[in-house]
Amino acid sequence: MLELDKRFKAAKKSYDADANPLTVLMEITKHCLRKISKEAKSRPHGNIGTKEYWVYEAKKGISRPYLKSLFIPSETDFNERWNLLIANINPDERNIASTSSEVDAVLYTSSMAFAMCYDIWKTSSRKTPGTYLEVLLGSIMGKILPDYKRTKHIPLPNEDETEEGNEESVSTDIVFEKTRANGEIFGLVIPAKITTRERIVQPFAHQRILDGVFGRNRFNSILVCISEMQLDKKKNKVNEICVPGTIRLFQKHLAELTGIYYLDPPTRYLQEDVTRVITIGSVGELLTTRLPKLI
Amino acid sequence: MLELDKRFKAAKKSYDADANPLTVLMEITKHCLRKISKEAKSRPHGNIGTKEYWVYEAKKGISRPYLKSLFIPSETDFNERWNLLIANINPDERNIASTSSEVDAVLYTSSMAFAMCYDIWKTSSRKTPGTYLEVLLGSIMGKILPDYKRTKHIPLPNEDETEEGNEESVSTDIVFEKTRANGEIFGLVIPAKITTRERIVQPFAHQRILDGVFGRNRFNSILVCISEMQLDKKKNKVNEICVPGTIRLFQKHLAELTGIYYLDPPTRYLQEDVTRVITIGSVGELLTTRLPKLI
Repeated sequence: MLELDKRFKAAKKSYDADANPLTVLMEITKHCLRKISKEAKSRPHGNIGTKEYWVYEAKKGISRPYLKSLFIPSETDFNERWNLLIANINPDERNIASTSSEVDAVLYTSSMAFAMCYDIWKTSSRKTPGTYLEVLLGSIMGKILPDYKRTKHIPLPNEDETEEGNEESVSTDIVFEKTRANGEIFGLVIPAKITTRERIVQPFAHQRILDGVFGRNRFNSILVCISEMQLDKKKNKVNEICVPGTIRLFQKHLAELTGIYYLDPPTRYLQEDVTRVITIGSVGELLTTRLPKLI
Repeated sequence: MLELDKRFKAAKKSYDADANPLTVLMEITKHCLRKISKEAKSRPHGNIGTKEYWVYEAKKGISRPYLKSLFIPSETDFNERWNLLIANINPDERNIASTSSEVDAVLYTSSMAFAMCYDIWKTSSRKTPGTYLEVLLGSIMGKILPDYKRTKHIPLPNEDETEEGNEESVSTDIVFEKTRANGEIFGLVIPAKITTRERIVQPFAHQRILDGVFGRNRFNSILVCISEMQLDKKKNKVNEICVPGTIRLFQKHLAELTGIYYLDPPTRYLQEDVTRVITIGSVGELLTTRLPKLI
């Protein structure tokens, strides 16, 4: 894992220096696919409806569950499809000219291969897979939106002159922003989470603060996640942890998110009582057709 | 631990049936104090300023850090001071007629003795110490406010007649509410947390929803916590995890909490840049002098 750690640190450093280290991310994914196929075994671990979830397992541990039909286990297959996806990035149209499901499969494989390696061989670094997702998504979107500035913080105007040194800001995973001729900044706020759990409230709260400080529609939030899957080791099954009532409550009474996008969208959130209130989709839909309308 | 588990389940059942099971809680605390003094050893684990934190340790595990000066290790000493505190509860004045530091010591000992037993002997039940704090605080406050109804949910008025079965509510740990002559409900919303961490946003978000739906000052929130301490096993020290910038941001731009009260208040939060924006105090201060003004 030392090798993987080192490579990801290099990718993160380059990303923080404003680059989009796509080639390094591809190499990391290939390294992960090689490692789990050689050193771990895969087996079914339960279904959600017709969706079949598997895990990788080795002596040292077990991975989170992955959606069998969306994951690309072959290194050469992944390599080819990743290259095609990158070639299909079209900044003029602000999208990726692949099919939506192809985008989901490639990005799901990249983020999950990394996360599953950490699950098995580096359980102490619980937060790193989340950082990987952030770097992956930020780099891909950075290629789609090259004229936007990528940041993590939105400074709030300082009303109180006496408060120097106490500047406030809303901080999230990814922000793409631009400055209008009049100096006003606007942009897209993108919290990127592996799953939401009790963190679901945060993007709504941040959007509420931004609405209050800047007015509506200067900054809009889209929440991007992998899935809401949870491994149940004891019962050899998987659970999908959904809180439709909470999402409806926050969207109606706290602030409006522009959408929630999953690589593996929970079936429950695609039902009418949720989609009537808030846009739910796949990351593939976001990056192939919806993004141009949001930017 | 089977015995402790059984006793707490009984307390919880009685609490959920609207009783204030104070005697059972006292017995549970005495059981915990007996168990840790017999089966575990205490030792220093680091300081924060002049505050000295210790841990209990046994073969099976190590406890969270406790503030030596606030914890009552002796069972008979605790028994006496608990009884005095309960006798000092004065519903007419809506307070406890003890000193503030005495209230902190007794409630800190009760909640921490339970939590430390679970840390050492039942690590699988991570959420139970939080539930214990809720039952302890809800029962004590239930004795102070006997004319209030204790609940956990505030239903929101259903604007949309077509949405039957989709009733919305704000759910938190403890609510004390009353109904005015005109039928309006008002009350005190009390999230009770061992520490806040990334959950700090939740009480602010809930208050914002309540302000939006009911208008200001129908429901007011006070956040009650044990501390913000964290054990650093590897370095044999303790950390105090504080986010003063985040608290200022939420209080100014999301919603106003009526106060945050700790059994062991973090020194950082008692500094002027925080207290200028939000009321911070000890639970003892809340229950001896401040509560009558909030209700």
